[in-house]
Amino acid sequence: MMTQGFTLWFTGLSGSGKTTLSREMEGVLLERGMKVELLDGDVVRTNLSKGLGFSKGDRDTNILRIGFVCNLLTRNDVVAIAAAISPYEEIRQKNRQLIGRYVEVYCKCPLDILEERDVKGLYKKARLGEIKNFTGVSDPYEEPSNPEVIVETDKETVEQCVAKITRTLELLGYIPVIGNGAEYSAEEEEEIKRRLKALGYI
Amino acid sequence: MMTQGFTLWFTGLSGSGKTTLSREMEGVLLERGMKVELLDGDVVRTNLSKGLGFSKGDRDTNILRIGFVCNLLTRNDVVAIAAAISPYEEIRQKNRQLIGRYVEVYCKCPLDILEERDVKGLYKKARLGEIKNFTGVSDPYEEPSNPEVIVETDKETVEQCVAKITRTLELLGYIPVIGNGAEYSAEEEEEIKRRLKALGYI
Repeated sequence: MMTQGFTLWFTGLSGSGKTTLSREMEGVLLERGMKVELLDGDVVRTNLSKGLGFSKGDRDTNILRIGFVCNLLTRNDVVAIAAAISPYEEIRQKNRQLIGRYVEVYCKCPLDILEERDVKGLYKKARLGEIKNFTGVSDPYEEPSNPEVIVETDKETVEQCVAKITRTLELLGYIPVIGNGAEYSAEEEEEIKRRLKALGYI
Repeated sequence: MMTQGFTLWFTGLSGSGKTTLSREMEGVLLERGMKVELLDGDVVRTNLSKGLGFSKGDRDTNILRIGFVCNLLTRNDVVAIAAAISPYEEIRQKNRQLIGRYVEVYCKCPLDILEERDVKGLYKKARLGEIKNFTGVSDPYEEPSNPEVIVETDKETVEQCVAKITRTLELLGYIPVIGNGAEYSAEEEEEIKRRLKALGYI
């Protein structure tokens, strides 16, 4: 099957569900016969970002570099999935401009819940000053101004989030429509359409 | 047309013709209907290598990083063309292993001829010590041990080099065969086949 590429970009605080959802979406898209490359934290740190730190400049370089690679893939009919905190709106917008077929998923979760869970113990270390420039604690996170999808990962299940992202991609015409929509309530479908209308897509 | 990807990797000293030949080959492959991405010096410096210097470690990181991106493209049916001095055999071999469908073109030209031409004035600066770690002058260049193509850019014209690379790709089965072979002498054809036989391809 020949399909056009696009970039599915996950942004959000550490622990907000980017990696989990990006892996789930990789599976969904592979099942639909797409070519998919997942650029998640580990892949990027090992292969693209070695030598970069967490200053504003280095973070920007990192995010633009991931965007560059996503663009190479996207324009060659591959779906690129990126999962990166990507805290700065200006830089995300630069990638959006570059890539064109760019779908932003904002993994939204209140900071106090992330700190309470603190699966990796990173927030605690950040509060103690053992990690510097930690997004949300000692470094800013700018909320996306026009994400194609917002998933509230403290309220929605993984399945719900995946369904919402998938349905958005279907409505954008980026992936083939399958199934009978039974996974979504009429209400959820309405919410997705409202957002895409507001962004001028449909 | 659906074709499989591969990586065409140009290695050689500064001024040996990598950029010229990589651009020519980009044109040839686009004409044959392939998807092509050219990762040449400028593209790489701007988008992938910012922050890296010319130490052994940084050079290796740079070449492996380009190889990582070439591999992403190659396994998604794109032809990736890289033009990079890539002086170390071990690192080139790592990329070869990773990528699999990897065709190495060694742009061979004696150092004294490159120094005499010195189009960009870099060799002079390197001799004066104004540029440190300059490959061929103050940093090593390890000749490739098993390149698919050797072009002697002080003796062969651009057209001859392009014909030799193109014919090699045809014989490898990586690009469709077109034309009547009139561009190559029987002798040149024999040379190409001898090399591919020695490497175990045919």
